[in-house]
Amino acid sequence: MSTPTKDATVTTTGDRDIHIERVFDAPLARVWAAYTRVEQLSQWWGRGNRLDIERWEFRKGGHWRFVEHSDGEQHGFEGRFREIVPEERIVQSFEWDGMPAHVAIDTATFVDLGDGRTKVITDSIFHTAEERDGMVQSGMEGGLNESYRALDRLLAS
Amino acid sequence: MSTPTKDATVTTTGDRDIHIERVFDAPLARVWAAYTRVEQLSQWWGRGNRLDIERWEFRKGGHWRFVEHSDGEQHGFEGRFREIVPEERIVQSFEWDGMPAHVAIDTATFVDLGDGRTKVITDSIFHTAEERDGMVQSGMEGGLNESYRALDRLLAS
Repeated sequence: MSTPTKDATVTTTGDRDIHIERVFDAPLARVWAAYTRVEQLSQWWGRGNRLDIERWEFRKGGHWRFVEHSDGEQHGFEGRFREIVPEERIVQSFEWDGMPAHVAIDTATFVDLGDGRTKVITDSIFHTAEERDGMVQSGMEGGLNESYRALDRLLAS
Repeated sequence: MSTPTKDATVTTTGDRDIHIERVFDAPLARVWAAYTRVEQLSQWWGRGNRLDIERWEFRKGGHWRFVEHSDGEQHGFEGRFREIVPEERIVQSFEWDGMPAHVAIDTATFVDLGDGRTKVITDSIFHTAEERDGMVQSGMEGGLNESYRALDRLLAS
């Protein structure tokens, strides 16, 4: 059985997709707020590292851009919102400065498990199989789990 | 045989791709300059309409953003440069504000035809077949040919 501190389930589907599931020990509204209020998002998105929010326009067509500071390095990430359905779904583009214009589309779906817990399902699609495989091999899963554990701590606070 | 004022050849390849070829009656260096110097690009990219250059960072990782004014409307377009090989190739992302985070990757290849003319080949790849088909059905080909004819005029001036 899942527990709130279990690692994310990361699977590849098709040749250009990544499917991620993670359960959080908090109600849907609380998890939604942690994903969508930038003062909360900035506390966990960067795995607990300092995160500069350079842009945050949480609306269809709006842009976001973060810079994570870790180990003396800076890593910029950015994207744009395609679709936002409150407490249900966020669709956005995602790219890392290190591979500019290699763009994934991420769909995050929020599911109320009915017992005070919330499952977040994230489906990513890349332009090519090589980009998908590169992301999987980049250590993404480790970083993701660090972020999710930081989110666990925020939700428990 | 091709002539400089012939319309572009637009073909679909695979289920997510568009392939475009167009010959211009000018040497490679002249065509390259028209694509890469923003004061020249702004004269043809918007089909002869007023084009506001909001951002132009012509380097790997740099962003661009244009707003075209036509028929009392404003249309924003933006993207980011993935790769630039002088007088050979430009790879960049492309999206229109009307469909945010629907991102195509465009590769423009510049070919010296050896007779004072230059062929520009543009290959676009979309995330889905639906996005590719939507672009083809949007009237893109007509707009593209208007832009290319504006470029013909610039090259002849």
